[in-house]
This record gives sequence, structure tokens and C-alpha cells, in this order.
Amino acid sequence: MTRFVAVDWGSTNRRAYVIDDGAVIFSDRDDRGVTAIAAKGFDAEVDILQARYDGLPMLLAGMIGSNRGWLDAGYVTTPAGLDAVACGVSWPRTDVAVVPGLSLAANGRGDVMRGEEVQLLGAVAAGLAPVDALLCQPGTHCKWARMAGGDVADFTTAMTGEMFALLRDHALIGREMIAEPSDDAAFLDGVAESARGDLLAALFGVRPASLLGLRKPESAGSFVSGLLIGTDVRAHSGDDDVHLLADGAIGALYARAIAAVGGTVCRVDSHAAFVAGIVRIQERIA
Amino acid sequence: MTRFVAVDWGSTNRRAYVIDDGAVIFSDRDDRGVTAIAAKGFDAEVDILQARYDGLPMLLAGMIGSNRGWLDAGYVTTPAGLDAVACGVSWPRTDVAVVPGLSLAANGRGDVMRGEEVQLLGAVAAGLAPVDALLCQPGTHCKWARMAGGDVADFTTAMTGEMFALLRDHALIGREMIAEPSDDAAFLDGVAESARGDLLAALFGVRPASLLGLRKPESAGSFVSGLLIGTDVRAHSGDDDVHLLADGAIGALYARAIAAVGGTVCRVDSHAAFVAGIVRIQERIA
Repeated sequence: MTRFVAVDWGSTNRRAYVIDDGAVIFSDRDDRGVTAIAAKGFDAEVDILQARYDGLPMLLAGMIGSNRGWLDAGYVTTPAGLDAVACGVSWPRTDVAVVPGLSLAANGRGDVMRGEEVQLLGAVAAGLAPVDALLCQPGTHCKWARMAGGDVADFTTAMTGEMFALLRDHALIGREMIAEPSDDAAFLDGVAESARGDLLAALFGVRPASLLGLRKPESAGSFVSGLLIGTDVRAHSGDDDVHLLADGAIGALYARAIAAVGGTVCRVDSHAAFVAGIVRIQERIA
Repeated sequence: MTRFVAVDWGSTNRRAYVIDDGAVIFSDRDDRGVTAIAAKGFDAEVDILQARYDGLPMLLAGMIGSNRGWLDAGYVTTPAGLDAVACGVSWPRTDVAVVPGLSLAANGRGDVMRGEEVQLLGAVAAGLAPVDALLCQPGTHCKWARMAGGDVADFTTAMTGEMFALLRDHALIGREMIAEPSDDAAFLDGVAESARGDLLAALFGVRPASLLGLRKPESAGSFVSGLLIGTDVRAHSGDDDVHLLADGAIGALYARAIAAVGGTVCRVDSHAAFVAGIVRIQERIA
């Protein structure tokens, strides 16, 4: 069996790839993420998806394998490579498998990922990033993964994107965060301000800066974005090159912040990384 | 005129003191804070309050003097002492005055306070704190003020309390922040974790710690409180003794965190500090 359907099934979106002999021959994206589906609706949803692709076997990754998804596919503990992840795959049906997440527990600190591991391991396996490297996956929950010998050796998650949304939607300063952030001068001011290491005060300072005429109110969104992303990058990039798996606007913001703090960015195509990873997992379980 | 009514009129509460010859002869507290009063209702509200106290002259401080309150009483720039604040008082009526706030603008950073300045200047003037000292006023927006020669020389506001409420009410980890925080072992774990200087990751880590059995879900509130207050204290207390103007639960949490990071706490009665400050301002404007 060389043809299968790989699904990157996240919280808010899913992307399906029909893969034949290691190459994508069709792909599609929709908004039927895990949170759009009722708890008892997953069996039917999997049926519909599989029927759409002529009953091909399917390999699912992401939040579909969480306790909020179709079934809890568990976690493989780090360090972990493709073999360990393939070993941990769950088989709710004979022709549908679900990839496990990764977990980490060290020094009283815990962390988890689900879905990102396919991209990380795929990026390295396909030579899109070195086997020993720092990889970054920005988003609601930004992942920073340290790869060693091709395995995920260690990782940290920062709630950078969720914090931006919390502030914009619910904080007092949110009233000023109207415009979409862009990598402009206010964004770089925020990145520079993050060097002070005083996030709770810098965030409060957004409104006084407007009140006192130190910053235009309409630039608050970019400033807060720069502050949060700058804080994230400074805490996690160290002196290493950052291999950035991100598209579009969020990728541009992280790339700008990393460069602004003196780092080097290497962009990696996150879709290519996912496909490279899922193909290698499929090879191991076929 | 030695008898007057001093009102500490904040966003959610107000507290009135009838003061005769420098001593409080009656005080009362209610929930008619600024946000409980319609924009056009302030004149009537001031009438009602003054009638309640036999038409005595009134001196109002706090958010009542903001653009969301009765009138914008402006800001006095720091460094500022009692003379400068008294000089900046507004007189919307011949027998009702409003205390201005303090502002600071330096190195592109701005900050403001409104109401706290009366406590700060009063604490020092009454000898409740040294004339050169670091004072801390915890709350939704925690103020850290550096006093020099009895004046407010510099200050910083951190959105520590607002951030706790944002996380509890709107973040994914909020589902676990059910129990009220207390200064328990989980709180101290949070204070210790704040030493890593990686707030965005430590906050994300709350849920994995529960998922992986590293921490009891019911201790999440205390842990997050310790993390935020620890972050605030480490960023702002330095090596100085902290003169803490706070009552009740929040005072206990800050005192515990300051001690945990090796600092020395001196508790100051915030009501006595307010009265000491407002009496001295009244003397100057009488």
C-alpha cells in the first residue's frame, strides 16, 4: 500500500494530503478542526473524510488524537525520534491510525505537543533542517524544539499567541489593539522593550504611552506583538540559528524579531516538513 | 476650616473619611466606584455624598479625577512631593477639590498613577516609611514607587492583578484556576519558577503539569499567583527593603513572595497612609 491520506487535524483547521509513493498528489484544507466537531461526531466525521478519498487508509496527526478529539492517542516521552513515534501509533480502525503526541517531564516542569512532532521530525529527516538544531513553530502555543541526532531532545511551549489574543480581547489595553500587528517600527520598539525583561510593566505601559503622547494609539497592536514575540525569542533562542517553521504573517513577525535580537533565521516550509514526517511514519507502520 | 471629608474614590469602591483637626472621626466604604456611575451622573453623586456629610468641604482623590470620572484632574510630573500635588489640585466647585495624578515619561516609557500618590506621600510624611525607600502597592495594577527625600522620584506599574484575572477568566489554563490562591506550597513553587524568567512558557506549563501528574490541578490558582507575583517582585524589588501598603490576602501573598526571594518586608497601614497624605494636602490648599 503506497497510497494513503495524511491528515494534519488541528483544533481549528485540518489539512488532508493524498500521498502516493511519497509524493503529494492532492491536498485540501477546511475548517473542520476538532473544536468544530461534537464529542460524539468523530466516528461519522472520519467516515465522511475517508469516503471523500475513495476509502484510502488514513494516518491522522494533531489534536484529533487528544482527549478532546476522536481518541486519546497518548504521548511518547522525549527524547523521541520517528521510530518511537511510529511505535506509539494508535489503531482505532484497521485502516485508520492516529499519531501520538510528545511529552516531557523534567525538574518538575512538564510540557506536551500534539501534531508539531510530525513537522519537527520530518524537517530533519528530509534535510530541511540539520539533525542538531533549534526549531521554532510559532502560533497560539509557540513550540521551541531542540533536535539532537534527528530526535526531539527537548522542547518548550510558550503561550505567546494565546497571550496576544487574551490581551486584545479582554485586557484594558485591548481597546487600543485595533490594528493587525505588522513588522513595523512599533513592533521593533516592542522587541527592544522586551530586553528589559519586565513584561508585566511593559504591557501596563501601553496605555500611559498613549495618554502621554509617547506612542500613537493605533500602533499598540504592533508594539504588544513585538513585546510578546521579543520576550519569547529572547527566552528561547539563545545563540542558536533558529529554523522557523511558519507561514505568512506570523512567520514574518518571528523572522523580524529574531533578526532584531541578533539571531539568524532559516525558514523551513512547514507543509513540506509535515509531509516528510508523515510519510516516514507511514513507512514504519505499513 | 479644620473639618473636611476626604474621599478615596477608586474604580470599583470608594471610602470616605470625615477628618477633624487631622484625625478621622468617621469613615465609611461603599461600592459607588467610578465605573458604577454613569458619565453624566457625577454631579448628582457628589451632591448626594456632600449632603450625607452635612455639606462639609470635600477633597477627592483617585479615579474620580480621571477622564472616566467626574473631571480630568490631570497629572503632576515626577519627581513630585506634597507641595507639587497640592499645587495641582483642581477646583470644580468652591468647596470641592480633586487631587491630580502623577505621570512619568523617561526613555520612551510612560507611566501614570491616580490615587496611590496620596498614600505614598502620606506614608513617608507620617514616618510610616523612610523618606528614601521602595514602596509597593499591590493590586490590579501594582505600583512600585521609589521615594527620594520624601518625594515620589520614580515609579513602575505592573499589570499583575489584571493578568491573574485575565488568565483565570479567559485563558485555557483558567479552567484549572478554580480555588482562590493562598500562600501555600504551590504558591512558593510558582515564586521559585519565576526565577527562570520565562513567564510565557511557565504559564503554558500549568496544564501539562496536571496532564502529566506533576501538580494537582486544584493548586493551579496558587501556582499562577506565585508565578505572577514572583515575576513582579523579582523585576522591581532589587536589593531594597519593600515597604508594603496592602491589606488582607493580597498583602499576605506579596509578603510571602518577597521573603521567598530573600527580601525584607515592612508592612505599612495603607488607610493610615492615605489619611496622612490627604490631611497634608488639605493643609496646603486650605
